Amino acid sequence: MNLLIKNIILPDGDKLKTADICVSNGIIKSIGSVPDGFVADETVEGGSRLAIPAFVNAHTHAYMSVLRNAADDLPFMQWLFEGVMPREEKLNNEQAYWGSLLACAEMIRRGCGTFCDMHLFPGASARAAIDSGMRAVVSRGLTGSDGGQRRLDEQYAEIEEFKGYDNIKFMLAPHAIYTCDKEFLLKVSAEAKRLGLGLNIHLSESKAEFEDCLRDNGCTPTEYVASLGLFENKTLAAHCVQLTENDISLLAKYNVSVASNPKSNLKLGNGIAPIYQLDQAGVNVCIGTDSAASNNSLNMFAELNYMTLLHKGTNYDSTAIPAKKALDFATVNGARALGFEKLGKLEEGWAADIALLDTNVPQMVPLRNYYAAVCYCCDGSETDTLVLNGKVVMKNKQLLTIDEEQLFYNVNKIVEATD
Amino acid sequence: MNLLIKNIILPDGDKLKTADICVSNGIIKSIGSVPDGFVADETVEGGSRLAIPAFVNAHTHAYMSVLRNAADDLPFMQWLFEGVMPREEKLNNEQAYWGSLLACAEMIRRGCGTFCDMHLFPGASARAAIDSGMRAVVSRGLTGSDGGQRRLDEQYAEIEEFKGYDNIKFMLAPHAIYTCDKEFLLKVSAEAKRLGLGLNIHLSESKAEFEDCLRDNGCTPTEYVASLGLFENKTLAAHCVQLTENDISLLAKYNVSVASNPKSNLKLGNGIAPIYQLDQAGVNVCIGTDSAASNNSLNMFAELNYMTLLHKGTNYDSTAIPAKKALDFATVNGARALGFEKLGKLEEGWAADIALLDTNVPQMVPLRNYYAAVCYCCDGSETDTLVLNGKVVMKNKQLLTIDEEQLFYNVNKIVEATD
Repeated sequence: MNLLIKNIILPDGDKLKTADICVSNGIIKSIGSVPDGFVADETVEGGSRLAIPAFVNAHTHAYMSVLRNAADDLPFMQWLFEGVMPREEKLNNEQAYWGSLLACAEMIRRGCGTFCDMHLFPGASARAAIDSGMRAVVSRGLTGSDGGQRRLDEQYAEIEEFKGYDNIKFMLAPHAIYTCDKEFLLKVSAEAKRLGLGLNIHLSESKAEFEDCLRDNGCTPTEYVASLGLFENKTLAAHCVQLTENDISLLAKYNVSVASNPKSNLKLGNGIAPIYQLDQAGVNVCIGTDSAASNNSLNMFAELNYMTLLHKGTNYDSTAIPAKKALDFATVNGARALGFEKLGKLEEGWAADIALLDTNVPQMVPLRNYYAAVCYCCDGSETDTLVLNGKVVMKNKQLLTIDEEQLFYNVNKIVEATD
Repeated sequence: MNLLIKNIILPDGDKLKTADICVSNGIIKSIGSVPDGFVADETVEGGSRLAIPAFVNAHTHAYMSVLRNAADDLPFMQWLFEGVMPREEKLNNEQAYWGSLLACAEMIRRGCGTFCDMHLFPGASARAAIDSGMRAVVSRGLTGSDGGQRRLDEQYAEIEEFKGYDNIKFMLAPHAIYTCDKEFLLKVSAEAKRLGLGLNIHLSESKAEFEDCLRDNGCTPTEYVASLGLFENKTLAAHCVQLTENDISLLAKYNVSVASNPKSNLKLGNGIAPIYQLDQAGVNVCIGTDSAASNNSLNMFAELNYMTLLHKGTNYDSTAIPAKKALDFATVNGARALGFEKLGKLEEGWAADIALLDTNVPQMVPLRNYYAAVCYCCDGSETDTLVLNGKVVMKNKQLLTIDEEQLFYNVNKIVEATD
């Protein structure tokens, strides 16, 4: 299957250039002029559009999109125990599927091709990713009190169910140090080693978590997790807001990837992760949206914008986290954290996950600079066409893999039934 | 001229309701069912759209939209002296008009109806506002060194030129304490008093301004301006990032309105204004985008989102600056600061400046809560229709007052000529 994307805008050093992208069987074959003998099965006209690698959303809970706007401007405990959990309790797997598909629709419309999901409903997000044409790394949130083994068994069954799908991968997800005791953390870590899977964990998200860990274990959450040997697995740690210098050194030493969720961390009153310092220390920083229950949107362009601006502002340094670096955070760094090879760059031989952005809108005129336009001008609505794995999943803002009318109807019915 | 907006979604306490809005001669006549005898000259179908008061952008430099993406990720001085000023030097009034019209196109597409402009090019932003159907408060940036009187004279001529336009108002704008000496500040203040105009000033934007003022005047920028009596005029102070407790008290005491520009302050490495504390002190907080040279977009939805999230995150309080309050900052508070009466609320007898937002998009499903949807879900592209002063200036995403094709062509020509 050959796809030709014609006349798209790409960076050329500090300038812009126009090129054609040829795709064969999901892989970028060439960028520039069309090679001799390349016959396109399908052609997308670039027009005045700019191409970026599709985003990798390194941390979300897709099913929670059905909980959007259910609980805002509340203290954390009220948000969790009155807003989120009672609604979660009422959801079944089918409803979680529709929530996950809603997340996929939103992510596709905002140029995102891959997501890392931590869920409670086995199969729901994997099915939504497959149906929508996205890539996903899926993990059952594992809490270690009552039912820890049941959750692990659910995870194993899910892995078995989806083992034929190249674009669905798995991690094991000990939820957090405050929901898993030491024995369970050690068990999950051993299981990850046995199965050759990475770990996905919430880490040092809030001051409360940080202070409780100091009190209970005499060390920081990051030191605690490191001391248990979890970081000997390939690890993706979400949030990492509260970090000491030693924590940053540990994350760097063990090649832990950090999925920063700037909007969610702010909105829940948790603060701002030291991304500038993590990046300086050589940590693989990637970006997540967290869920629509704490954000309330899954728009990677917004996260990208926050990622650059927040760390300039809080470090009093207008050169901190420049646009080009932040775009890497949102694409190739995320792919690296999730174990997708050659994903997240527009280069020959890399995966054809490509978002085309309309530049013929006021916020993109004059265009001048590729990276500034993407990071500082886009609100996400510029995303016009999305190619994933060489297939067009959105064209001229029409979703080709999801029936949105049916989706919205079903989601609203779920809300009626569970609110 | 009677306009009927049918079946739009509005808040009803914590719930949602559907209503019709009747507009007569630019004023909201009723919200609810259509009054007997009301005959619409034009009808807009609400469909599944939600209505908000059009935004008031309380601080921008509209002409600078032609400088978009010219200088990013640079130290402040390099940004100003190498990126911005050499290009500004080359602009003429006609080119500044097209830059301003570009700003208007972007603001209209993102639901903004009114802006407060500080400019260098007399007439450019006023004409752009008039041509696009927006309201504007216009001020010539007055610097007090060489040419201070010439700039004041330009301001007087501009006021004279546009005195017939109800939707164009003026302020006097001493640019900042570091570009105006004491005598000039006193002179502009006296002129404002004589003319019955408000003042528009950049205040305490950066650490450098704050520290230089302490060194030179033995007091903070806010104390310095207060001591000169400027605040005895109705004053709009932009930025106010670096404030002491006493500064906050002074701003409250003198009823100074603060136009906060969260994205620009972050991007230039200036930090975060203490909005939570200003609001607690009773200061009239409003929101600006600043210019596209330091943002790089004029999207009030993004500022609204930053305004809520930033202050929750930095105050470690998820209840800080709730959505409803932030929407007031972005609408009625701005109108109050600019001296527009009965503007910025959807109420009977108030100005019919109304933005309609599409809710039939993934990020707005499920809708659940009016204020959360507007502040936490919208990226701005939901803005579908904009009514200003009772006239439809955008309908179904088509601009009715601006020829965008011509606009973009002209802007790109200007960039070619001046870059």
